[in-house]
Amino acid sequence: MAFMDGQDNGGDRDGSKGRAMALEGIFRPRSVAFAGVSGDSFNSGSMLMGAVVDSGFKGEVYPVHPRGGDVMGYKCYTNIKEIPGPVDHVVVCIPARYTRQLVEDCVAKGVKSIAFFTAGFSETGAEDGKKLEAELVSIAREGGVRLIGPNCMGIYCPSSGLAIQVGMPKESGPVGYVCQSGGNTVHGVAEANSRGVCFSKAVSYGNACDVNETDLFEYFTHDPETEIIAAYVEGIRQGERFVKALREATQAKPVIILKGGRTDAGAATAASHTGSLACSSSVWKGLIEQTGAIQVESLEEMTDCILPFLYMKPPKGLNTAIIGIGGGASVIAADDCYSAGLKVPSLPAEMREELKELTTEAGNIFNNPIDTQSFMVGVEEFSKTVRIVADWDGIDLLIVHIAHESLMMEMGMTRTFVNVAIDTLKKIGKPTAVALYGASSPKGWATIFEEQQQCMDAGFPVFYSVKTAANAISKYLRYHQSRNNHHE
Amino acid sequence: MAFMDGQDNGGDRDGSKGRAMALEGIFRPRSVAFAGVSGDSFNSGSMLMGAVVDSGFKGEVYPVHPRGGDVMGYKCYTNIKEIPGPVDHVVVCIPARYTRQLVEDCVAKGVKSIAFFTAGFSETGAEDGKKLEAELVSIAREGGVRLIGPNCMGIYCPSSGLAIQVGMPKESGPVGYVCQSGGNTVHGVAEANSRGVCFSKAVSYGNACDVNETDLFEYFTHDPETEIIAAYVEGIRQGERFVKALREATQAKPVIILKGGRTDAGAATAASHTGSLACSSSVWKGLIEQTGAIQVESLEEMTDCILPFLYMKPPKGLNTAIIGIGGGASVIAADDCYSAGLKVPSLPAEMREELKELTTEAGNIFNNPIDTQSFMVGVEEFSKTVRIVADWDGIDLLIVHIAHESLMMEMGMTRTFVNVAIDTLKKIGKPTAVALYGASSPKGWATIFEEQQQCMDAGFPVFYSVKTAANAISKYLRYHQSRNNHHE
Repeated sequence: MAFMDGQDNGGDRDGSKGRAMALEGIFRPRSVAFAGVSGDSFNSGSMLMGAVVDSGFKGEVYPVHPRGGDVMGYKCYTNIKEIPGPVDHVVVCIPARYTRQLVEDCVAKGVKSIAFFTAGFSETGAEDGKKLEAELVSIAREGGVRLIGPNCMGIYCPSSGLAIQVGMPKESGPVGYVCQSGGNTVHGVAEANSRGVCFSKAVSYGNACDVNETDLFEYFTHDPETEIIAAYVEGIRQGERFVKALREATQAKPVIILKGGRTDAGAATAASHTGSLACSSSVWKGLIEQTGAIQVESLEEMTDCILPFLYMKPPKGLNTAIIGIGGGASVIAADDCYSAGLKVPSLPAEMREELKELTTEAGNIFNNPIDTQSFMVGVEEFSKTVRIVADWDGIDLLIVHIAHESLMMEMGMTRTFVNVAIDTLKKIGKPTAVALYGASSPKGWATIFEEQQQCMDAGFPVFYSVKTAANAISKYLRYHQSRNNHHE
Repeated sequence: MAFMDGQDNGGDRDGSKGRAMALEGIFRPRSVAFAGVSGDSFNSGSMLMGAVVDSGFKGEVYPVHPRGGDVMGYKCYTNIKEIPGPVDHVVVCIPARYTRQLVEDCVAKGVKSIAFFTAGFSETGAEDGKKLEAELVSIAREGGVRLIGPNCMGIYCPSSGLAIQVGMPKESGPVGYVCQSGGNTVHGVAEANSRGVCFSKAVSYGNACDVNETDLFEYFTHDPETEIIAAYVEGIRQGERFVKALREATQAKPVIILKGGRTDAGAATAASHTGSLACSSSVWKGLIEQTGAIQVESLEEMTDCILPFLYMKPPKGLNTAIIGIGGGASVIAADDCYSAGLKVPSLPAEMREELKELTTEAGNIFNNPIDTQSFMVGVEEFSKTVRIVADWDGIDLLIVHIAHESLMMEMGMTRTFVNVAIDTLKKIGKPTAVALYGASSPKGWATIFEEQQQCMDAGFPVFYSVKTAANAISKYLRYHQSRNNHHE
């Protein structure tokens, strides 16, 4: 196929754009067949088909199973070739030993892409598994069919109604997600979505026998629906091509990567999971530094690092004002910000005097962090405190933080604190993050989720600690600094 | 007073035990007076008195306020000296300018200890504040009264019904908590308690003008009700004495310390908060290493590090088996354990074969981490999988982990997973931690809290990620290793 050869296509010198455009079709099938759908509730095929139906897929849906009949109200075909209309995409949940025949049938039927949930191939380390996988690739390439997986969950694309689990978010957004693991696709999307992040597409690509991490980076680099690229990657198949694709991706868009298998133990696990070969951690580290990609170590940190790109314009510098309640919490917040590389400048003496007039209680700190009881005096006093600090030229950004699950929360004071702070800061427009933490009960978490929604509605990113907020903001700032340096 | 002089008292060569025993009284007052209780709901005195009443304090409670009358159903006295019976402990919430007179009244009344919520002393940095604080200490020492604070919340002791906020846990436990910050006392206790940790006593000691961190370390070292010492410390007042006390404490009991002000920014904040002087981070680091105290960086990590002491017998070594669901989650778990210094040995070939027979699905990992779908085959198969791994001599401990907020949780499968795993592991008795994570909704957290309770009831510690579990266990192991080395 032309787009596999890396020919010169005019302005697309290495063919990456052409290859990317050719991949667009896998996200827009007119119809999807599910091979291996028994209709039992624990059957993987039934679950994957249920996800697409639930997601509002507009095209045709065809269950396929040797016993035929009806499945979930759909006519079930005994074979792909029996299906009357065109079949663009096939999701495969049949045992590995039947897959060669299935790919041949798909070629005969004119299928464009196949996602293999089926496992038991190269990741087992066994020769017959590797051989079968190579055969599938060979048959598919000859027949012009793209393979996703095997040993993967496939494609999530809310705008076209593709999903890989019931209940996935239906709203589209600017994040493209390259994710080798199916579980990390589902959990990463859920975690990010609960914090206000929506996705253009996500692809769980498993063993990466055909469509691999490099193809997907190329695709998301050129995809107009994707503004930020997130990735969970265990192995790199085509080293040189990958380095080039990652460099191109980071030049075009922010790239946030979680590398699975960054230690010996993790690398051994990745080999068993997706047959991924280890990549030396020093090589990987060098690559990340060279390209300016943002490296993270958990799915939660991935969301943390996406949030500033969506909810915070770039601060002009590192100078951070920290506003919250509690002296001990303020000390820890200052330690956390400083440790993350942010600066916490002292307030000018005259400003401190001005702030002191807004509260009658001793036991406040007006020195940045600002630990203020002014909101116990009144809403206006607290709002003015926030305004005075936020207006100061000496700071570039604010972190507003409050601990939950104390009397404060019971009395509705965390809510008041958050409401007044975000109302005031919305008007000022300086980059601001909110940290809501200290929930030690289901009720505490319920309150945090409600307040989080208010913050997101007002356009502020929410973190679950000052430490994680400071870490994400610091990485966001370094990203912009390194780009500015490159552009100078 | 004798116990301030450090005389030789027989076996108690430096007097620390004598001093500690003398401090016992502050936790067992026969009566408590609250100076500055207006009865208004936002009044600090009313809140602190409400906390003690709510906590079931058995002794007499006396509100004191110039306007007299009745407060919360108690007769309110206009002056401490007016109170008819003996007053052992006084909580002070009056403005700083009235405190000299109050301490004099307390001396006249024969009060034994005073906790000053009142702030506006040395922590302001102003000369008059420092001078007033020194005067209070001088009057109190001469009159034989111990001062706690000022600028603190005072004493929490569930067994005697002392509390510093309404709703604090009423159950006693083995952890003594030295905590300079009032907020960090309340939040630290709530956070730890929600995860199965109870306290013997906690003291918020603010500016530490009289009773300081060293006194409290000495006290908890000798307190028979305390088996583990946790601490949040901003400043060290008596360096040499503190080093000696910390060394004695760590020799007697595990000590877990969160140092507030470990960075320049944090130290500046600590100075404003409790007037604490900065302590060089290299000096502090050396002290921690010398004494074998466990250093943490957040209240959550403090709880993490307490848990193994309460819920896990010491593993014999670092070899860890990781059992969970999900290939990507298993890869990250292996990286997290290895990064924390644990070992993740491969299972013997024959054991892997044995495990493979327990599940029909491909897509599992039997290599440690064990990613097993065996519990989708049946409860007995999953239980057997866990049993085979746990019984193996090659591992010293287990981490069982499961992500929430996916279809798995909705279908009740996380519950089944946790139930079967803990039932099986309870019988085997090998040290085990449980990691419950990935809740991205209030419902997800509610489920985690329920499952957490089941685990705690069965005697297993619960963490909110494999990373935090591995970190705490690694510190727990290093603690035991260093003690064994010292004892050799």
